[in-house]
Amino acid sequence: MAKISQDLLHDSEIPTEDLAALFASTRARTLALADTLSDADATVQSMPDASPAKWHLAHTTWFLETFVLRDFVHGYAPFDESYHFLFNSYYEGEGERHPRARRGMITRPSLDDIREYREHVDYAIGTVFDALPKGAHELIELGCHHEAQHQELMLTDMLHLFAQNPTDPAVWDHPRNVPAPMPQPLRWVEGRQGTAEIGHDATNSNQGFAFDCEGPRHTVWLRRHALADRLITNSEWQAFIEDSGYTRPDLWLSDGWAWVQAEGIAAPLYWRSSDNGWRAFALDGVHALHPAAPVAHISHYEADAYARWAGARLPTEAEWESAAQSCDPCFGNQLDTAGPVRPRAARAADGLRQMFGDVWQWTGSAFLPYPGFAAAEGAVGEYNGKFMSGQMVLRGASCATPRGSSRVSTRNFFPPNARWQFSGLRLARDL
Amino acid sequence: MAKISQDLLHDSEIPTEDLAALFASTRARTLALADTLSDADATVQSMPDASPAKWHLAHTTWFLETFVLRDFVHGYAPFDESYHFLFNSYYEGEGERHPRARRGMITRPSLDDIREYREHVDYAIGTVFDALPKGAHELIELGCHHEAQHQELMLTDMLHLFAQNPTDPAVWDHPRNVPAPMPQPLRWVEGRQGTAEIGHDATNSNQGFAFDCEGPRHTVWLRRHALADRLITNSEWQAFIEDSGYTRPDLWLSDGWAWVQAEGIAAPLYWRSSDNGWRAFALDGVHALHPAAPVAHISHYEADAYARWAGARLPTEAEWESAAQSCDPCFGNQLDTAGPVRPRAARAADGLRQMFGDVWQWTGSAFLPYPGFAAAEGAVGEYNGKFMSGQMVLRGASCATPRGSSRVSTRNFFPPNARWQFSGLRLARDL
Amino acid sequence: MAKISQDLLHDSEIPTEDLAALFASTRARTLALADTLSDADATVQSMPDASPAKWHLAHTTWFLETFVLRDFVHGYAPFDESYHFLFNSYYEGEGERHPRARRGMITRPSLDDIREYREHVDYAIGTVFDALPKGAHELIELGCHHEAQHQELMLTDMLHLFAQNPTDPAVWDHPRNVPAPMPQPLRWVEGRQGTAEIGHDATNSNQGFAFDCEGPRHTVWLRRHALADRLITNSEWQAFIEDSGYTRPDLWLSDGWAWVQAEGIAAPLYWRSSDNGWRAFALDGVHALHPAAPVAHISHYEADAYARWAGARLPTEAEWESAAQSCDPCFGNQLDTAGPVRPRAARAADGLRQMFGDVWQWTGSAFLPYPGFAAAEGAVGEYNGKFMSGQMVLRGASCATPRGSSRVSTRNFFPPNARWQFSGLRLARDL
Amino acid sequence: MAKISQDLLHDSEIPTEDLAALFASTRARTLALADTLSDADATVQSMPDASPAKWHLAHTTWFLETFVLRDFVHGYAPFDESYHFLFNSYYEGEGERHPRARRGMITRPSLDDIREYREHVDYAIGTVFDALPKGAHELIELGCHHEAQHQELMLTDMLHLFAQNPTDPAVWDHPRNVPAPMPQPLRWVEGRQGTAEIGHDATNSNQGFAFDCEGPRHTVWLRRHALADRLITNSEWQAFIEDSGYTRPDLWLSDGWAWVQAEGIAAPLYWRSSDNGWRAFALDGVHALHPAAPVAHISHYEADAYARWAGARLPTEAEWESAAQSCDPCFGNQLDTAGPVRPRAARAADGLRQMFGDVWQWTGSAFLPYPGFAAAEGAVGEYNGKFMSGQMVLRGASCATPRGSSRVSTRNFFPPNARWQFSGLRLARDL
Repeated sequence: MAKISQDLLHDSEIPTEDLAALFASTRARTLALADTLSDADATVQSMPDASPAKWHLAHTTWFLETFVLRDFVHGYAPFDESYHFLFNSYYEGEGERHPRARRGMITRPSLDDIREYREHVDYAIGTVFDALPKGAHELIELGCHHEAQHQELMLTDMLHLFAQNPTDPAVWDHPRNVPAPMPQPLRWVEGRQGTAEIGHDATNSNQGFAFDCEGPRHTVWLRRHALADRLITNSEWQAFIEDSGYTRPDLWLSDGWAWVQAEGIAAPLYWRSSDNGWRAFALDGVHALHPAAPVAHISHYEADAYARWAGARLPTEAEWESAAQSCDPCFGNQLDTAGPVRPRAARAADGLRQMFGDVWQWTGSAFLPYPGFAAAEGAVGEYNGKFMSGQMVLRGASCATPRGSSRVSTRNFFPPNARWQFSGLRLARDL
Repeated sequence: MAKISQDLLHDSEIPTEDLAALFASTRARTLALADTLSDADATVQSMPDASPAKWHLAHTTWFLETFVLRDFVHGYAPFDESYHFLFNSYYEGEGERHPRARRGMITRPSLDDIREYREHVDYAIGTVFDALPKGAHELIELGCHHEAQHQELMLTDMLHLFAQNPTDPAVWDHPRNVPAPMPQPLRWVEGRQGTAEIGHDATNSNQGFAFDCEGPRHTVWLRRHALADRLITNSEWQAFIEDSGYTRPDLWLSDGWAWVQAEGIAAPLYWRSSDNGWRAFALDGVHALHPAAPVAHISHYEADAYARWAGARLPTEAEWESAAQSCDPCFGNQLDTAGPVRPRAARAADGLRQMFGDVWQWTGSAFLPYPGFAAAEGAVGEYNGKFMSGQMVLRGASCATPRGSSRVSTRNFFPPNARWQFSGLRLARDL
Repeated sequence: MAKISQDLLHDSEIPTEDLAALFASTRARTLALADTLSDADATVQSMPDASPAKWHLAHTTWFLETFVLRDFVHGYAPFDESYHFLFNSYYEGEGERHPRARRGMITRPSLDDIREYREHVDYAIGTVFDALPKGAHELIELGCHHEAQHQELMLTDMLHLFAQNPTDPAVWDHPRNVPAPMPQPLRWVEGRQGTAEIGHDATNSNQGFAFDCEGPRHTVWLRRHALADRLITNSEWQAFIEDSGYTRPDLWLSDGWAWVQAEGIAAPLYWRSSDNGWRAFALDGVHALHPAAPVAHISHYEADAYARWAGARLPTEAEWESAAQSCDPCFGNQLDTAGPVRPRAARAADGLRQMFGDVWQWTGSAFLPYPGFAAAEGAVGEYNGKFMSGQMVLRGASCATPRGSSRVSTRNFFPPNARWQFSGLRLARDL
Repeated sequence: MAKISQDLLHDSEIPTEDLAALFASTRARTLALADTLSDADATVQSMPDASPAKWHLAHTTWFLETFVLRDFVHGYAPFDESYHFLFNSYYEGEGERHPRARRGMITRPSLDDIREYREHVDYAIGTVFDALPKGAHELIELGCHHEAQHQELMLTDMLHLFAQNPTDPAVWDHPRNVPAPMPQPLRWVEGRQGTAEIGHDATNSNQGFAFDCEGPRHTVWLRRHALADRLITNSEWQAFIEDSGYTRPDLWLSDGWAWVQAEGIAAPLYWRSSDNGWRAFALDGVHALHPAAPVAHISHYEADAYARWAGARLPTEAEWESAAQSCDPCFGNQLDTAGPVRPRAARAADGLRQMFGDVWQWTGSAFLPYPGFAAAEGAVGEYNGKFMSGQMVLRGASCATPRGSSRVSTRNFFPPNARWQFSGLRLARDL
């Protein structure tokens, strides 16, 4: 049985009725996101890094069944014995599991079977909810935040799958387009200099939930610098392309240049050139690129090359978080209800904008443990620490991030060549 | 537009009413084979060599829509313009097509869409059937034989897909087992010596349909030899395993030995060792191996190694065909109706048995053109000739071969490491 | 200890003094071919299929040391115990060996060490030569023919290595060019029809040495056909290129087309386009292609595509051998002394020319056992039989073949994508 | 022509006579390290990450010829025009170059040719030395430090090459073994807390030479922590192995665990198990592991797993550098003269030991730009900045580091799976 470290849970003090509401809304939204999918749509895996929607639906349920029902409810019998093998993601402490790259082979159980599994587990948790000890409630809260992460992954994995289909299927109807003016020229906002405090403070119960890798809170020293007031747009990215951005090795990291050449990269993922200029594939079909909207689906290598081309650099995560402390992480273009999602142009305003929502922002920081970080013990302790190698940090939130699930301290992370997330960039520079 | 060579069609003289019946039964059987599949079952591709069932259902329909309706019916509008790109298999003459290894990405059109496509094309052909010229009838006959081939592939591709699922799904119910006695010891039947005539004779209209690679009829010279009277059984194969057959390099072709080591091969595909001995996965679930049934799902390399171990060799295709001329190709354990298929033990009898049905028989002959062979012109001419490289010939028919679709002259062919077909072996030796 | 089958040796009756001369001249020529190589030239391996010259020098010596000195000379101590591991090529029966793809890692022993090894073994054999039994003499004869094969491989492997060097080193001086007229137009020579006898007859002691795979002699049936009277030339190949030969899928075998696209093949190996037309790299440097010389360094796929483009086909090995029975295999442009080798234009004459020498000729036949073939027992029996899979037969001899080492019955074989040998083609067609 | 940024050169104020001496001794030591190599030893490339010794000899000379002679000496004609293509390493600004993975194909020019090249360039520089402007002197200084780096790489690349040879060649004689006592138990030395200054200060001309990535000097904030007083030893590593260190996934980073399984890693590189316990391959042959000597040839993944197993962690580079500021970087077991090199046991003493020499120490820091870092312009600006992705920092120096070429601020870096350097570890922990 997994031993859950108290450290992981940061002693969150969410009231029981709020937790019940969070649980209900989280579970409902996952289902809603998959509502338009066929059994086949939900089963196919488009690349080893992506998972089938059915797997996301099942894995988030397995997480709750395992760490709540199995570990806290005496006599609970699993819905199906084989699911423990099929739907464990990467928890070595939970034993053998189906290989990640073969998740798309599992045509049975069907999507309907998995919907029934969800209903079964939700009902079981509902039945015992009030009687569960505090430790179980904390795990339910963790499960909700875990499921919010998988909602975003499910959307980006769906996008990747449908982009493989030469018939360009539209999974959702195209929303009515609201004309958006071009954004103001990019301006620089000076950041804090000298010491700053960043990271989640698990000792402060007012701070709410956070994942283990977001703490401990610690001091950093910041050099004089400024951040751009908004994200880089599609039209700015086109200027980079037109200025030979993808063919000048001096703009690129060595690994990035090798990647560009080996993969034949010449534009962001999902961009398609047409006689009428660039277009892009999205879950509501192929559309003309909006010049004022933030560029999305770029790798860290591309973000870094753009910044060098622009005579700037990417922000560090400390610079970013220090600036974000004055922003509301629940604000901005984030996911509220199921439906097509798209980055949107910045509104006209002074000061920092688009810190949360639209696209995740690549930083120049590697995903490494904060000073004083220690992984939790047991299977749940595998949550983040073991991925602290070979990945770069992204900050903020995207249009596919469930609102309320991102924090000032959130550290998202992907390998530097990953592009299928809603990833873009904000510039920084030294002063 | 594809120009269809008359050579290909061998001037078959099938009566119109017989062709209509063949068309109806062939189209119905394909649907029946897919009857128990879910949308996801029919969509996923388990390896680049295999295709989704939905693709087989669509491709066989595309073949008829293209070469019959498009080419012979004035004003016919395709069911869906995108299908020409999606469901062309390998006809370079028909333009660009979806890459083979990405067939499993096509979650839309759905299985139901494809069933509708089939209905549409069948109805369109039915409407004009009697009015079509002889050339179109010949193409319908070709389309039926083409579809029969895909029925077998669809079954073996389904088997491969379900074998990837760790939950061992049973697609069909297990048939009632009929006890079968162990076969008689293997006996040798002497073959013809000196000149023999083999191959399909396109100039003889009594011979019926054949694919282009089966002709022309030609003379060969046979050395004195004998064929085994039956197929090699599972229990004989177990003896090979127990005598270190898979670990003795002297028994193997050099390429075969490299393959055994690189892939860790130690038993036929789908065999699984258990505490109670060998078991095997099939479309009706996991079952104990029947010792008297023919071994199946072996590669050419394995068949060749077994023959060497047994002090024998594989037959050449000329030896095999010469012997088969006295056998009825419609006899034996072949596919009649949709349902689980299994190789079965040889009945007790004298003379050559199991020449057709149970498993395809690897020969020692490479798949090369017969003397005088010339590929047909146009897209249909790509049918077989361009695959005459790197493949070995199998003869006979298997339990998954639609009865009536294999001939004495049929040349099946696969690369020497292929195992997902119902492939086994019959021994031969010099006298 | 390896048991040498008498079958392998075909009871050759070469007189002792002739064998001694063959031994001396063979051993000397190998050394001479490596004479201009530096230690580094002789050590580096340019691809897994090629071997370092030093390895060829050592392996041919190991063959004699092992099968003659170790097996027939009581008390013989090996020159160096480690060489048995280092210089065994592929004889599984002789135990573990250094991996083929890592032969280029062996910087020590040095080239001088290996020259000393050769001297040692030659001296040891010379000392006991007259006293050796007939079986050992037969193995020495086999060793000489084995070494002749390695001489050709050593030349082609050297060519491949030096072609990797962007400075285009000339290993030998350029020979004086003799102007050659363009060949006569290609003419057809009708071949034998009906039964023919091919293959080496081991029961006829007048036939001299042959490798095991060249027999037994057997009857074949030939359809009416003709062979081209000479090889295809460079200028004819240029016409193929200019007629889009490399970009028309209808000309290619399916595997060949995949290979052309994956590897970006657009001309024979070692051809280089320049402002002054095609040039080619050879061991005596880069030179203008001679239009009348036979095309060389093409794969089987290319030969097959050319033949299809020309409305012809490749000969079968039976057709080729039947025709070659009237030719002298010691005639033509073959290797006499160390120095640069080059295919040369056909002389003007009637009838079949260039059957031996210039370039090996791809046939349409797979390398498979002849009827009645049985591999020898023991390690020497691994000589050819285990390679009878996935390879195509070439016939004749090339400008790099030591004169006297090719026979009417010689079967050379390589995978269909191999190009680093002196390989070209002669057309055939049905009549 | 490359434009050399003054920033890169940090305005080093080395006196001319000292520079001349540095130049002479550096150039001589490179030659001496290659003294025992044959032409073949110096030519073969054992893996894409390693280079032939001949290449190191030539490339370091090319660097001086290009950036000093070509750019500062009017009328200088290059020794050989082809060398610019052959021996450029990765400077995109200097145009096309020979592919890194094919460096081992260059058997010509020979080792002797390259020795002549070195002599030529050294002579040319000597002739004009005093007349060169300050900018050229700074580039000569850079060239010497560059060459010192290549001396270490040449040694580790030679070690890797000879380790591929199954005959275990000893390149140098075995030095006389001096008995070494087992080291004292590991003790913890508390580090500085709060702000610290690290990095090279280019504005302070007393600080001497440094590479661009070592600056600018900047403030960091350190949490309370301690460093181990010495390196981890071979006997401590054996305890890790014996406690199943390589088979417990909970000890490993996710990428590290995947690497261990894919590569079958079970011990440091060059360790070989024998009946008498662990032995190791070195340039002076195979020898018993010295239990008290520091473990070497481990990857970052292994260092990280060991630290987790030991209940500790790796130091950050800021912690390490802050502690090293009190140590002499010219002290310790580093390279003085050509000959076999080996990590040695720590001497008995109080306080931090082995900070420089023996083995490089993996840190927990990714190789990223320091705050305020800007790459130099022009080709020389490619020196370090473009590698700031996917690599981890190592600190200190090793037994193969030329004494005098490592500084307190030196940042060595390799991918986390690299093992062929002399890489080991020192533990750190929070207090």
